[in-house]
Parts: sequence; structure tokens; C-alpha cells
Amino acid sequence: MPTNRRWILESRPVGEPTMENFRLEEGELPDPDTDEVLVRTLYQSVDPYMRGRMRDAESYAEPWDVGDVMKAGVVGEVVDSRHPRYEQGDVVQGELEWAEYTVADGSELNPVNPEIAPVSTALGVLGMPGVTAYFGLLDAGEPTPGDTVVVSGAAGAVGSVVGQIAKQAGCRVVGVAGADEKTEWLTEELGFDAAVNYKTEDVKKGLATACPDGVDVYFDNVGGPVTDAVWPLLNVRARVVVCGQIALYNATEVPTGPRKLAQLIQTRAKVEGILVRDYEGRWGEALSRLGEWVASGELQYREHVVEGFENAPEAFLGLFEGVNIGKQVVKVADPEYAKL
Amino acid sequence: MPTNRRWILESRPVGEPTMENFRLEEGELPDPDTDEVLVRTLYQSVDPYMRGRMRDAESYAEPWDVGDVMKAGVVGEVVDSRHPRYEQGDVVQGELEWAEYTVADGSELNPVNPEIAPVSTALGVLGMPGVTAYFGLLDAGEPTPGDTVVVSGAAGAVGSVVGQIAKQAGCRVVGVAGADEKTEWLTEELGFDAAVNYKTEDVKKGLATACPDGVDVYFDNVGGPVTDAVWPLLNVRARVVVCGQIALYNATEVPTGPRKLAQLIQTRAKVEGILVRDYEGRWGEALSRLGEWVASGELQYREHVVEGFENAPEAFLGLFEGVNIGKQVVKVADPEYAKL
Repeated sequence: MPTNRRWILESRPVGEPTMENFRLEEGELPDPDTDEVLVRTLYQSVDPYMRGRMRDAESYAEPWDVGDVMKAGVVGEVVDSRHPRYEQGDVVQGELEWAEYTVADGSELNPVNPEIAPVSTALGVLGMPGVTAYFGLLDAGEPTPGDTVVVSGAAGAVGSVVGQIAKQAGCRVVGVAGADEKTEWLTEELGFDAAVNYKTEDVKKGLATACPDGVDVYFDNVGGPVTDAVWPLLNVRARVVVCGQIALYNATEVPTGPRKLAQLIQTRAKVEGILVRDYEGRWGEALSRLGEWVASGELQYREHVVEGFENAPEAFLGLFEGVNIGKQVVKVADPEYAKL
Repeated sequence: MPTNRRWILESRPVGEPTMENFRLEEGELPDPDTDEVLVRTLYQSVDPYMRGRMRDAESYAEPWDVGDVMKAGVVGEVVDSRHPRYEQGDVVQGELEWAEYTVADGSELNPVNPEIAPVSTALGVLGMPGVTAYFGLLDAGEPTPGDTVVVSGAAGAVGSVVGQIAKQAGCRVVGVAGADEKTEWLTEELGFDAAVNYKTEDVKKGLATACPDGVDVYFDNVGGPVTDAVWPLLNVRARVVVCGQIALYNATEVPTGPRKLAQLIQTRAKVEGILVRDYEGRWGEALSRLGEWVASGELQYREHVVEGFENAPEAFLGLFEGVNIGKQVVKVADPEYAKL
């Protein structure tokens, strides 16, 4: 009988999270009850928003309690099912636990079709980050052909999809990222028109050069100084989509910066925060488009895979160092029941 | 033959403007050419946005050159007309000069009907500030019955109208202003549900008490710390209308403050800058509603009148001290040709 390992929130981080905030717990395999399914994790997601759940403060995602198993997007295989919709060997995706096995109600799971793309993409380009990019850009960003779209965190799971959809929409696309390997990926493989490395370049100058007609849409995944550099380039009636602010998530005091609202009067720009949760009923719409584009090769993606369940916290910490190119996932196990 | 006095931008202010930035110049009366009208100023407006035009930087309003006559909203009487639409004694409104007399093309003037309300209101409740309030609140703020609407600069020309329209729209209305005389006017005469004096009270606590259900619409005329205090109270899908940022207009360095974008993700709030200029073709729509409300007494207003053209700069400087309750105007002359 296999045992089950799970990652517990051991303590709340102050500033940057460390390994001390996590504890690996070993226990028995749970048994599924009526309508429940025992899922064996194949891939686990780590995402920047999880930093908010480690905090003892109300946020859009409920905070985790110290001593609780943490939650994550998981792609797994069905080991045992007492739900009519699933049977052993099915691949499913759900908001499950940082665990090797989770028991979940079948109604909380979504089937993953292994024929469309590798199943891990259900955590990335064909999952929450892809859907976030799709609606965030198209719904809140309202790109029109000829617009200049700037994306921060452009080589991340969301940003890389945003930029490619913006290209499809006929826009000039400029990415900001923190490594030459990233900016090269953006311009040489993903079709971005330009990219600025904010760690080695003067971002203001780089963006001014890359955006000779100003910025019509700014899709912001990072916040902080990069956002400060984009702001003065906003055009009249520009749209700013605030999707993430990873540069600020580890702040121990309220971060300060230049006051930005006055310029909105000049530009009549609109700044809007987005959460993928608001599009719950419309995932199918986004996934069918994203799936077609992935199948046709029009939408490319990369995954940064960390091997081994024991390395999940490290994979999470890496997000704040910008280690990943594309979607950061943890490969927990090879399939035993699913045929992939 | 009367002479004409005009206020010249003598130098650009550094920080708070002073009397040294203005120079009174005396000259001859201009003569109207074909299609032009000689207008004698009865009332001149001073508005916070003028601070931007004194600055040597691109803004939504073109900067004035040092040595030039400054521009202002003026209500005046026609002395001499070479435009078919106007004749001597007509009352007109236009973007004219800080001057006792201005010659303007007839097409740049709007007729003012003295029978609706005192003609000075064409600079306030039935002029640019009123129209700004009308579209800023109804178009960008999207108030719905039951919403809590917070207005900063609530006793000013724009804010006092915003709050009253929000009441008409079925909202709970809370004003922030800088004097007890102002907050009393708001709650006792204009029908605001509550008002907070930011100079004598803890604004955060005051607003928390006054807004037990959070804030759905924030109409911001001032920026700075008052806005910082409203921000944490924003509800999911709140609308922030950025109309003015008078607290920052005299800053000599880029003002800094708490970074505010992360909270937009939590709330999916929308922040939008507005300029009345964008509603140029729709003034009639707003003015007819505002006029009805003024006539019926549903929309109240106050004017803070400074007497004498020579005191125009002082009236302008007073805006930054919050001297005015309601619209700040300068009474330049009694009518000689118009029958009021």
C-alpha cells in the first residue's frame, strides 16, 4: 500500500518565502466516498498568486491556515472512482492539494483530453494561465489592429500567451522580461516585435524605442518599477490590465511608488484588475480557441519542469527569482493507470 | 474710451503659485473684425486645471507661454458684434481671456439664457464643472441604486454636483471635504448621507463608519492621502473616476504614495480618467437635465464670488487653500448692455 506525501503550510512567510515555511507530511492514502475520486498527481502547478494565500489577510483567494495542506492546480490520473463520470485511468484536472494523492468530489474535477496536447498543458497554456491571458487581453484589454501592446512578465505562463494572442489580433507587441534567454524566446520564436530586458537595460529608454507610437494596451503581470516605466507612454484611451503584481507580493511594508492617477486624466486611460474566476462559465470558449491555436502551432508554449514532488516548494520559490521560462510545473509522477 | 486690463503669465510657478507669477497689463480695447464679437467680461472662472497650463509640460490642456494672456471660462455681455448670431446686450460664454474685454470669433461663443438661472452659473453648475460632474459620474461611474458613492473635493464646483446627481440615482453618498462649514453644507443642505472633514478627522475611520457596505463608486477630485484612505474600502467591481488631483498639482517632485494596483486585482475595480472635452458634442444633453434640476430646486449650488478683476489671481490661489465652497468665480463687472 503506497503512502501519501503532502506539503503543509508550516508557517507564514515574512517577506520572501523560504523552505522553513513548508513541511512535508507523510500519511495514509485516503479512500474515496460516494461520488468521490482518488486522484494520483502527475503534475502540480505552482503560481505566483499562492503567495497571497500564505498571508494572513483577506485576498481574492482565501488564506491557508498554518498546519493545513496547501492547494494547487493538479493534473492527475484517476486511481479509484466512485463518481459515475470518471473511471480508473482517466486524466483529470482540478484545484486539489499539494499532495501525491487527493480525494476529490467528482464534480470538482475537469476531464483532460490527452489527445489535444501533453496533459501538463492543462495547468498552463490550456489551463488557468491561458484562460487568464485570453479573457484578460481580449475582454479587458480590448486590443484593436495597429495597437501597441506591452506585456510585463512576458515570458511567464500568462504573458507569453497574451503576447501571442495580441499578435493574432493585429497588434505590435512588446514584451518586458528579466533575462536575455527570455527576450530572445519572445522575439525569435513567439513573434513579439520587440522585447526589453529590465534587468540589464534602461527600461524607460528601451520601451520608448520599442513603442514609437506609445502604448495602447499594457498587460501588467509584475507591477513596481517596470509598470512605472510603461506609464508615461500610455496613449489617450489606453487600457491597462492588472493581472499580477509579482514584484510586490513579498513586500513586508506597503510598497510605495510614484502616484499614477493624475496621468489617467490626461490620457483618459482605463485601469482594470482582472481575475480568471470571473470567467468561470466561459472557460470552454477560451479553451476551444487556445486548443486550436496550439494544435495549429500558432500558439507556442514552454514549460519549466521541476522533477519530483519533494521539490515543489523550491519550484514555487523560483517564481520570485524569475527562474522559469513559460509555465512552471512540478512533475510528480509518471502515469501508472492512464495511457498517455 | 475704456482701456482693457489683462492678466499675463509673468513666470512659471515652482510649487504653489504666488502673486509674482501674474502681471496685470493695461492696453487698448480691441476691435472686432468680420465674424468677431467684442465681449465684456462679467464673470471669470478660475479652475484647478489652470495650474497645469502654467507648467512647461505637455498636459491635456496646452501650456501657456510666459508673457501670454491667460485663458479662462468667461461669461460676458456683447458690446459690439460683427457676427450674425450675436448683438449688443447678448450674454455669452466662452473660453476667453483673463481680461476685462476679449475679442472672439462668434463661432467660439455659446449664448447664455439669463432666464434659467443667474448667468454666472454658466461657469459652474450649468457650465464646465456641471457637465464634468454629469458625464463623469453617469458615464464613467455607472452608479446604480443602492451603491455607495464617495466624492472627494465634495464641496467644490464638480463634487457638489456629483453628490447630488448620485442621490438622484438612488445612491448612498458620502463626501470628503476640508472644513466643517463644507461638510455641514453637504449633509444639511445638499442631502449627502454623510461627510468627513479630512483636516480634522481620521479619514480612514470616518469613511469606514460612513461606508459600512464599502465603496462602489469613488469620484476623485483631489488624489493624495484622501484617495489612499478610500482605496481599501473599494468593493468588488468598484468604479473609480479620476477627475482631478488637486492635492498633487503643486508638487515639485513626482509625488509618491502607496502602490495601488494590486488591490485592483482583488476587487476587479476599474479606474478611469475623464475629461469633459470628450463629451463636447453632448453638452446640450447634460445642460438640459442640469437646468431642469436647478429650476426645480433638486440641484443646489453655491458660488464663492471674489469681487474685482484685479483679484483674479488671488481667487485662483485660494483654490489650493480650499477657500471656496461651491464654484469659485471672479465678478469682474456689472452689466452695462445686458438686461439681467
